[in-house]
Amino acid sequence: MDNFSFYSPTCFVFGKDAESKVGACVKRFGGSRVLIHYGGGSAKRSGLLDRVRASLDKNGISYVELGGVKPNPRSGLVYEGIELCRAEKVDFILAVGGGSVIDSSKAVAAGTLYDGDFWDFYCGRRISEALPLGTVLTIAAAGSEGSPDSVITKEEGMLKRGASGDALRPKFSILNPALTQTLPPYQTAAGATDIIAHLYERYLTNTTEVEVTDRLIEALMLTMKHEAPRVIADPDNYDARANIMWAGMMAHNNAVGVGRSQDWNSHNIEHELSALYDCAHGAGLAVTMPAVFKYVMNHDVMRFAQVAVRVWGCDMDFAHPEKTALAGIEALKNFLKSIGMPVTFEELGAKKEDIPTLVNVLCHGNGRSGYIQGFVRLDEEDCRKIYESM
Amino acid sequence: MDNFSFYSPTCFVFGKDAESKVGACVKRFGGSRVLIHYGGGSAKRSGLLDRVRASLDKNGISYVELGGVKPNPRSGLVYEGIELCRAEKVDFILAVGGGSVIDSSKAVAAGTLYDGDFWDFYCGRRISEALPLGTVLTIAAAGSEGSPDSVITKEEGMLKRGASGDALRPKFSILNPALTQTLPPYQTAAGATDIIAHLYERYLTNTTEVEVTDRLIEALMLTMKHEAPRVIADPDNYDARANIMWAGMMAHNNAVGVGRSQDWNSHNIEHELSALYDCAHGAGLAVTMPAVFKYVMNHDVMRFAQVAVRVWGCDMDFAHPEKTALAGIEALKNFLKSIGMPVTFEELGAKKEDIPTLVNVLCHGNGRSGYIQGFVRLDEEDCRKIYESM
Repeated sequence: MDNFSFYSPTCFVFGKDAESKVGACVKRFGGSRVLIHYGGGSAKRSGLLDRVRASLDKNGISYVELGGVKPNPRSGLVYEGIELCRAEKVDFILAVGGGSVIDSSKAVAAGTLYDGDFWDFYCGRRISEALPLGTVLTIAAAGSEGSPDSVITKEEGMLKRGASGDALRPKFSILNPALTQTLPPYQTAAGATDIIAHLYERYLTNTTEVEVTDRLIEALMLTMKHEAPRVIADPDNYDARANIMWAGMMAHNNAVGVGRSQDWNSHNIEHELSALYDCAHGAGLAVTMPAVFKYVMNHDVMRFAQVAVRVWGCDMDFAHPEKTALAGIEALKNFLKSIGMPVTFEELGAKKEDIPTLVNVLCHGNGRSGYIQGFVRLDEEDCRKIYESM
Repeated sequence: MDNFSFYSPTCFVFGKDAESKVGACVKRFGGSRVLIHYGGGSAKRSGLLDRVRASLDKNGISYVELGGVKPNPRSGLVYEGIELCRAEKVDFILAVGGGSVIDSSKAVAAGTLYDGDFWDFYCGRRISEALPLGTVLTIAAAGSEGSPDSVITKEEGMLKRGASGDALRPKFSILNPALTQTLPPYQTAAGATDIIAHLYERYLTNTTEVEVTDRLIEALMLTMKHEAPRVIADPDNYDARANIMWAGMMAHNNAVGVGRSQDWNSHNIEHELSALYDCAHGAGLAVTMPAVFKYVMNHDVMRFAQVAVRVWGCDMDFAHPEKTALAGIEALKNFLKSIGMPVTFEELGAKKEDIPTLVNVLCHGNGRSGYIQGFVRLDEEDCRKIYESM
């Protein structure tokens, strides 16, 4: 096991009607002038925004609002949010939505206190401070409610890049599984796929002797395998939603990923897809993961056999472990298909003729030197083959 | 799943030589005048205390010291610590040791800022504030390094009672697995048993639909089953020590126990044993757990069958699930025996003639009304039978 630091000082308030505590939470963590940041109309239509406002009013907290965050959140709205926060002397940001809204809020939080262009943070600049933020989560997916991470897409060149820093960890996150019951099945499935991807990205490691985190990651994978089909079959199943919601947070606050090298090649390869085609990140991952895993499987056949046996219930073929490894990848692919995810390039709306562009931006964008490095190092030729195999 | 709040704002610094960062950690969390609280001679002999002092010196942090914490830490030393902190204007407490030292430190931290008798907190009074504290952990066991809990024994009447409060969560905990390599095998095994007990106490629940936490608890049990025999066979196995150390923290900061009722009957029944006989808490649990589990098994046979199959690798007897349930308890008992733990009342040094006293203090001490309530309600008759079956 590798040395590590782990610091997750987010207060999670979980359960039915938890959003009624949002005003008290903002107060507890020092907010007095809030930016409510949200996405499209669903938070309005469902009455969630009204309930959030009522809780802030009740606690004597004033606020301004900025809606309009889109999936794969854009830099344009971040600049707008930063200006608004400065003009209105906002001291706390409240994200009401999913990963896109939270990631946009994190960018605004860091950008407001920074003299330069916030995009610097997405090009590697260290984040030393940010406005405090809290979240009211409306989809189990990105794990941004408990993570120090944010991913933003810059319209110019459609560059999708991430930033990270302890200052971006939410002070509190309100997790009410009932809020996810109205999601369309496709979004629920895409969220579940994102959670599963966060687990695989941590599972694929070159660090040895990591029994505790292997087992914890497998535990969350088994949960998703059990619960995701239940919510697809019955969207109103509160308990299945609740299990998924905690699994989604645990999958990404890194408690189960400490002390080991991680992969993140699938995320990097997918980011170019959702940047170019504006598809759901989870849907892109459903297409990407099986292709990447088949391509890199021989780097550590026993690791893929282990997850096949322990999570997907495959029989171990002791004479041919590679067959077990492959069966596990097929089981994952079939599982993703069964919950309604696309599993081919075409189903995603991607085009083979764009592959040279995808590979070029992937391997040379954002200061990369012709390859991406994770569980294995993938150069342009590798990435081209992976996109072609989707 | 039940509603819950989860807040674990402890910064964990994990790995080889991590204690060299203790001065920087104290500074980061605002300490300038420290009480170093520790136990017997091993922290001195090993040179750990010298390294801690050197790191504080390097960061310009002054300190006073109070050693002498014993296993099953006593109220007497807590009073001494409180006086010392007040006299020396201590603003940060640094626990260097295991669960006993950390629990004693937590009591001092809360007591220093309280006008009344600190024991009030161990009789149910809410803890609203405490001096900030950090830990340098020397044994994987109690999980106090990441928990809001503390257990203290009052000499007068040998009452062993717990207190809990978010203010008792350490600001930081330094976890260097190498520091545990010099422990005697018996202490290592007792620590592992305590961790396993923290998992069973959470596993035994009356809440339904708790897949995610069931799976996470099982993951940590599987880790302990794999790693504990490895450190007993090879005390210098750093990686096995490291896996156990993170499992021990995760078992008790409650990330895997949220949203479900918990048991804690085994701990309560054991506390009377270690209070009366001053045995190692883990050793007492090794004797207590199988006896309690057999007694309460029929309350939920399928829960015991589930852990038997998923953790202990028992075959499921579909015609007679109670046989599987029992096989799992036997497997646990054999496992504890195999790592060197006592599994009978006599091996523990306990005496059958003390049972009436044990039952009386257990069921009537500290304001209890003739029973203890956990996974099942156990009255005096139940508790007598359980002690007699050990």
